[in-house]
Amino acid sequence: MASATEPRFAASYDLLTAGDPALVAQGIAGEQSCGTFVRLPQESEEMWARSGARVEALDERAWNPRAGLQTDESGRPVRRFGLRLSWPLGNTGASLPNLLATAAGNLFELREVAGLVLEDLDLPPALVAACPGPAFGIAGTRRLAGVEHRPLIGTIIKPSIGLTPTETAELVDGLCAGGIDFIKDDELQADGELCSFEDRIAAVLPVIERHADRTGRKVMYAANVTGDLDEMLARCERLAALGGTCAMVSLHSVGLTGFTWLRRRISLPIHAHRNGWGYLGRFPRHGFSYVAWQKIWRLAGADHLHVNGLANKFWEPDDSVIASARACLTPLGSEPEEARLAMPVFSSGQTVRQMPGTLAALDSSDFIFCAGGGIAAHPGGVAAGVRALRDAWEAASKGVTLDDAATTSPDLKQALEHFR
Amino acid sequence: MASATEPRFAASYDLLTAGDPALVAQGIAGEQSCGTFVRLPQESEEMWARSGARVEALDERAWNPRAGLQTDESGRPVRRFGLRLSWPLGNTGASLPNLLATAAGNLFELREVAGLVLEDLDLPPALVAACPGPAFGIAGTRRLAGVEHRPLIGTIIKPSIGLTPTETAELVDGLCAGGIDFIKDDELQADGELCSFEDRIAAVLPVIERHADRTGRKVMYAANVTGDLDEMLARCERLAALGGTCAMVSLHSVGLTGFTWLRRRISLPIHAHRNGWGYLGRFPRHGFSYVAWQKIWRLAGADHLHVNGLANKFWEPDDSVIASARACLTPLGSEPEEARLAMPVFSSGQTVRQMPGTLAALDSSDFIFCAGGGIAAHPGGVAAGVRALRDAWEAASKGVTLDDAATTSPDLKQALEHFR
Repeated sequence: MASATEPRFAASYDLLTAGDPALVAQGIAGEQSCGTFVRLPQESEEMWARSGARVEALDERAWNPRAGLQTDESGRPVRRFGLRLSWPLGNTGASLPNLLATAAGNLFELREVAGLVLEDLDLPPALVAACPGPAFGIAGTRRLAGVEHRPLIGTIIKPSIGLTPTETAELVDGLCAGGIDFIKDDELQADGELCSFEDRIAAVLPVIERHADRTGRKVMYAANVTGDLDEMLARCERLAALGGTCAMVSLHSVGLTGFTWLRRRISLPIHAHRNGWGYLGRFPRHGFSYVAWQKIWRLAGADHLHVNGLANKFWEPDDSVIASARACLTPLGSEPEEARLAMPVFSSGQTVRQMPGTLAALDSSDFIFCAGGGIAAHPGGVAAGVRALRDAWEAASKGVTLDDAATTSPDLKQALEHFR
Repeated sequence: MASATEPRFAASYDLLTAGDPALVAQGIAGEQSCGTFVRLPQESEEMWARSGARVEALDERAWNPRAGLQTDESGRPVRRFGLRLSWPLGNTGASLPNLLATAAGNLFELREVAGLVLEDLDLPPALVAACPGPAFGIAGTRRLAGVEHRPLIGTIIKPSIGLTPTETAELVDGLCAGGIDFIKDDELQADGELCSFEDRIAAVLPVIERHADRTGRKVMYAANVTGDLDEMLARCERLAALGGTCAMVSLHSVGLTGFTWLRRRISLPIHAHRNGWGYLGRFPRHGFSYVAWQKIWRLAGADHLHVNGLANKFWEPDDSVIASARACLTPLGSEPEEARLAMPVFSSGQTVRQMPGTLAALDSSDFIFCAGGGIAAHPGGVAAGVRALRDAWEAASKGVTLDDAATTSPDLKQALEHFR
């Protein structure tokens, strides 16, 4: 029998409906637990008390103009509600894949649900404990990269695709010489004909080792291991054997159970690339909020999560980017072992100019700041580009404006003149 | 060097943009291959010829009113285009996960891309050959279920959740006695506290075996194995050991690489449940068409794919349902071994009334027709419900109307009177 203390999980939604909101909310709760379109003889009050979903909250909201037309497919006018449902964890067991089939499954297709965005998940400790979570997280990443206190300054190998392994290694050589902390493959570059994974890491990792021998600090190279699971495992093992310290994967290509499987078998931080996130999160009619989405991937074991960047080259406004980054740094539970923090990764058109705003909004230096052109296009070269970003952080962390700091940092001065 | 005969893959999109369409199309092609926001010194004409994406077609389309507001996030008016891009297969290798990061990755977030739906994928034989595809498909499913020529008549265990293993087995007993071909778990029922996977199949499979001994034909029971990969593999092995003939998974909970991994290791048809499809395919602003989506899962190895049903209880119109089902029955390549057909699964409020329309629209009996209430609520009981559906198919396949057929089928007559 159910008891008041039995663990439950909850999901919050942004709901658009043309129907009676209380009936629709109860309808969703029914569809996603004991009920179906019609009342069945097998449904008992006891069954509902034990296994039924509950409507925990339902509140009308002001219309979100970004959600598009204020009608459903039949032309009926819709209103907008915040909805919160809860389920006994016993329905799914402590299983993230099954919890998702319940909280993010068929309900998106219900006729009366004209729009639905999963805004948040509230997960009991038993579920958090059953998921691996990040193996390295912030502390492990800092330890491997040899960077304390300040953000990791990173970059992306560009052109995205078309470079040979030798050309890639030459780029990496210049970046390491310039003092970079972090380098990642582009998500388009995994194991193509011209630049196979094996040849690429065989060319790149010795360069990284050589610089590590010189500086005593190893640049973290997130090599894109994305592929089938057996391929990914073999690539991670090869990476680790050659001294690599990070594996990058395209989350939506890999999927939840493959990601968890890999996480449990490798000893490298996982740099989680969100490419494809746009089809889940851009248009607020059907989909996920980043808050809900990043919880799933942190539970699955993501150590680094992409969050876009301030004043980025994509469509996303700054407040959304910062909310995403803050979410990654918000503990998943009240106990220290339930924190499961991931390092947010800023990228897309980033230069020294976004550093103060990023730091101020986040109130933390636990992030990776990836600049492509923001480093490579610095008039003084890569080394000056990296130094300018570090100086920008240093200034911002002390409450000094970039313009003031530029009076004592020629690299920052040049960057401010170049990146406007 | 690139050659004209080098294999390429292509993707077709429904694009909304406020920008100059030719520039936007070229911008997407650049972002998803050799280019980035700015032209880099390393980009050469040779690199572009070898690795660049090509704009193959770009045509303006009439506005789709279902796509919502005719403006982008900045309020600029948008127009609608059909866009087709192609890439050298060498960019990704014959790797479905990496192909998706290219054709369905960051492009959904580009500022100039106000809306984007992946409509179709055109995949070269080398890619098709590299993916496992359905191990059983239509022929294998028919062989295991002992059903030739006609559709498999199926049902779903309801209530979705809340039944014990014993209660589930009692339901299954009645369904088998009634002559059902196919039974599936609900997607909410996997391995919960009250009805663990192990206890459920231990109760259900002996019932199915007992009826198989009686009839010489084994009812196919799609047991929901969804969970982590090691769990799923163990569950499939246990299923097979107990004589089970089908494994059901929630595709979006499992994800692509986990699904492929499982497909390569088990010897059961995989019944692929699409719960969550609504957040990808319902609103035509950002997402996937079912045509593109089902190709991915057939390549990954889905034997049965859900397509909703005619006059269903969800939001989806009939023409969309039929297009989905037809897609599952359309070969992926011109060679017989490239067909990779999956059996479409109709469900959601299905009764005898939808059978003729389904058969006519599909021009094939290679489908699974799942009716819940359409069988359980038949006034003559489950056996009469199953017979009525078979008689409805028989009539439709001969071009006889249901009303005419009802004059010689009392079960069909009762069904027509009850299900209006």
